[in-house]
Amino acid sequence: MQRLLLTTAAIAALATALPAAAQFQKPEDAVKYRKAGFTVMAAHFSRLGAMAQGRVPFDAAAATMNAEIVADMAKLPFAGFVEGTAGTEKGTPKANVWTDRAKFDAGAKKLQEESAKLAANAKTLDGLKAAFTATAGTCKACHDDFRNP
Amino acid sequence: MQRLLLTTAAIAALATALPAAAQFQKPEDAVKYRKAGFTVMAAHFSRLGAMAQGRVPFDAAAATMNAEIVADMAKLPFAGFVEGTAGTEKGTPKANVWTDRAKFDAGAKKLQEESAKLAANAKTLDGLKAAFTATAGTCKACHDDFRNP
Repeated sequence: MQRLLLTTAAIAALATALPAAAQFQKPEDAVKYRKAGFTVMAAHFSRLGAMAQGRVPFDAAAATMNAEIVADMAKLPFAGFVEGTAGTEKGTPKANVWTDRAKFDAGAKKLQEESAKLAANAKTLDGLKAAFTATAGTCKACHDDFRNP
Repeated sequence: MQRLLLTTAAIAALATALPAAAQFQKPEDAVKYRKAGFTVMAAHFSRLGAMAQGRVPFDAAAATMNAEIVADMAKLPFAGFVEGTAGTEKGTPKANVWTDRAKFDAGAKKLQEESAKLAANAKTLDGLKAAFTATAGTCKACHDDFRNP
């Protein structure tokens, strides 16, 4: 069995040691990477939403599995927010990701914390519902502040 | 700290319990999901290649972190190979993914096994080199057989 050994702290340490841009050959690679990471995370998060909202039957094992994937994926895409990749079109990051980076990073950390709680609490429907709502709130908070509508 | 608790067996059990297509609203969602998963995996795998091939200095912690992400990502995209999503364009899956599914699934399993070894052996440069080559071989074997050139 293989498990993700990455702590948020370890990723932060790596990010500090190596400028994010250095991890990508071109800014477009960073954009593609972060979008891909969010796509995978969203696919699994939406399955939790379907259970939390009663659209599919609750299944503790499936909920926990999906929540663990969400929690792991939540650690990845933020490395792809490299300088020079702000946009103006719908769904692209606003320039304040970089001008207000401390707030953006705090939002990323909040998502990581809440999704870890989601993974820990997805084995009961009540636990899932509460943690899903809290996690979804962290998504929305960042989207409202940093994403072009 | 949050770690992926998914064993390959657990994913296989889930896939058996729930037809893969049922996890996606539309076939296009499955295609988008699997491509996103491979994109994230490839980004981290390419960093290992850069170290294995001496293009960037070897760093045991970074190598292990990237290899663990590869090993976890290797478990995800295969759920996106749902019926009716074969193609003919470059990079799309050939129809034999579905007509020779046992071989395709064996290839996926081989990737998962070799990438787990990669994560276990990335802390030395010699270990990384050998495991990187073995893992890359599993990528190529499937691409040769199942992907349109």
